[in-house]
Amino acid sequence: MKIVCYKDKILKAINSVVKGVASKTTMPILEGILIQTNDNEIKLTTYDLEIGIEYIMECDVKEQGSTVVNAIMFSEIIRKLPDTEIYITLNDKNLLEIECEGSLYKLATMNPEEFPELPKIEIENSIELEQNVLKNMIRKTIFAVSSEENRPIFTGCLFEIQKNKLNVVAVDGFRLALRSIFLNKQTNDFSAVIPGKTLNEVNKILLDSFEPIKIGVSKNQALFEMDNCKIVTRVLDGEFLNYKNVIPENWETRVKVNKNNLQNSFERISLISASSVEKEKKYPVKVKVDIGKVVISCTNQTGEAKEELFVSTEGKNLEAGFNPKYFLDSLKSIDDEDVYVEFGTSISPCLIKSIENKDYVYMILPIRLKED
Amino acid sequence: MKIVCYKDKILKAINSVVKGVASKTTMPILEGILIQTNDNEIKLTTYDLEIGIEYIMECDVKEQGSTVVNAIMFSEIIRKLPDTEIYITLNDKNLLEIECEGSLYKLATMNPEEFPELPKIEIENSIELEQNVLKNMIRKTIFAVSSEENRPIFTGCLFEIQKNKLNVVAVDGFRLALRSIFLNKQTNDFSAVIPGKTLNEVNKILLDSFEPIKIGVSKNQALFEMDNCKIVTRVLDGEFLNYKNVIPENWETRVKVNKNNLQNSFERISLISASSVEKEKKYPVKVKVDIGKVVISCTNQTGEAKEELFVSTEGKNLEAGFNPKYFLDSLKSIDDEDVYVEFGTSISPCLIKSIENKDYVYMILPIRLKED
Repeated sequence: MKIVCYKDKILKAINSVVKGVASKTTMPILEGILIQTNDNEIKLTTYDLEIGIEYIMECDVKEQGSTVVNAIMFSEIIRKLPDTEIYITLNDKNLLEIECEGSLYKLATMNPEEFPELPKIEIENSIELEQNVLKNMIRKTIFAVSSEENRPIFTGCLFEIQKNKLNVVAVDGFRLALRSIFLNKQTNDFSAVIPGKTLNEVNKILLDSFEPIKIGVSKNQALFEMDNCKIVTRVLDGEFLNYKNVIPENWETRVKVNKNNLQNSFERISLISASSVEKEKKYPVKVKVDIGKVVISCTNQTGEAKEELFVSTEGKNLEAGFNPKYFLDSLKSIDDEDVYVEFGTSISPCLIKSIENKDYVYMILPIRLKED
Repeated sequence: MKIVCYKDKILKAINSVVKGVASKTTMPILEGILIQTNDNEIKLTTYDLEIGIEYIMECDVKEQGSTVVNAIMFSEIIRKLPDTEIYITLNDKNLLEIECEGSLYKLATMNPEEFPELPKIEIENSIELEQNVLKNMIRKTIFAVSSEENRPIFTGCLFEIQKNKLNVVAVDGFRLALRSIFLNKQTNDFSAVIPGKTLNEVNKILLDSFEPIKIGVSKNQALFEMDNCKIVTRVLDGEFLNYKNVIPENWETRVKVNKNNLQNSFERISLISASSVEKEKKYPVKVKVDIGKVVISCTNQTGEAKEELFVSTEGKNLEAGFNPKYFLDSLKSIDDEDVYVEFGTSISPCLIKSIENKDYVYMILPIRLKED
């Protein structure tokens, strides 16, 4: 194998696939990048047995061939070479020679035949989005994914296509994040739960651009397909929460509040609530709604905190306890100037909603307040 | 105690003193900031029994008094408050009330009388520099300070004033860094070894500006004095290396090389040399000087690396082994386009020197090469 390519081009390819490299593995081949030539193209592949990434690029192939090289070492060397042509050759001692101006590196390689094959996918359903749109939807829901492995289905995000609308839902037992968007094209209804870990990697590869990305699903797999780059992942098996049934439709108390002001108040009060030596959960912050104002307060060994916000309120007065982290995560992911915060009773979930449209709903379960 | 001040002003004061707060201590008072009023000024003090920092600022003092409050908690709350006036009051329950718009925080305080007093210094000798100059000299030597506590004197930098010149020297047994600068004013000869840890903190407080800083020393202490801010530190006791005697005056081989090219070559080759599973020290890189070129190479289980640089050479051919990290640290701290690299034999120290003046010398000891 012998190829010639420009540094910036191959570095872009490596950067895309390197996210699929296994980090803690007993199989060294999974720490490698499979390099395969095909006429005047090369294909780079990584696969950690959960996520597989393929990247195809044109380059000057002098001699066909294939090899596997340690991904980190290969990418670090390429990254530090000058911005010019690089000659990459598999020599007769099975060392990968990387040559560029006065630099010559020879890296040990592994047998490409031992590299595991990526699963083949027969796509049953698919949608197409702009990359920046998908990136945005992932970023604004993924924080609510569960990290507890005892209910694996909740370690992923539900992608639900229904009536030409894409709903992305994450839920961890204490809160729920829902983002929705209308699709341009007529599409079949279908759904799949994509592992949070995959979405994190997909998110890193996605560009903040209008370039398209296709999401296709089969029974057990999903495929993210961009220009040059494909990501294959398993989908999670099991019954996702019937989320529509758990989001309350009516409120008893509703507050219209400046998003940044509310976020800043929760950020400050977290300094006190999170500093407690005992578990945060035992010291919720108290949210009190009175006519025309919201008071958020917290008391523990570190001190006392009180935040008063003048807002417009509707409905009953209310007092309820919450983990401020859940409010913060949701508020940080909202770009609107104002939001609605809706409450039922002091033991029913609280919703954060868009004023103008139905793009998002964040739901947060309350924590019972201790009697003072 | 009751004061009123603007957020940005008190935050600047807190940011300066917070670097003197003890991080791992069994004495909670050392995690605090001592706040003392004095007419229409407040003084903030922190002291971890090694470094003490004092900052004086004008503010609207409504009621005189003093207290000690946890530094991290106080600084985090102030940092997150809006950019406006803040009311800070010690209430009759000894809680420090911080009030700003709709926010009210009450923090536990400690007894100011239990706060240890900073050592008094009777300055015997002093110099004055611009802050950016001192910042620069610290940054360009401190990496060579020893981290080994068995020879405490080498965990500091020597500040030596001799013939109106300031020499700052760091040495760790494997390499030496020396930076020199001429002083504007006539000054007595004197010297002191300042702990590296102090210099790190001083460096963070120093501005990249022409503002003056005065360095004063007594027998056991040193004082860094800026506008509003004073830093007191102990000096290290013991005999520093007579560094002038160990720096070779003559060379057998001299190379004039582009600093960036040499640095890039060492950076790349470090990827191979540092990746060895065995200790780096056993796999030095080999530096070979031939007429008109330098070849740096390294071989281990990960692979082989060779870097060839075309340079102007004088004197004998040479082959010697080095730890590339020491070259990198030194080269990174040099702003010149070209440097001299001087060698004696393969077992004598190598020097990196300025072409144009005598501002700096970096000395690196070789590592014996294994016979191949």
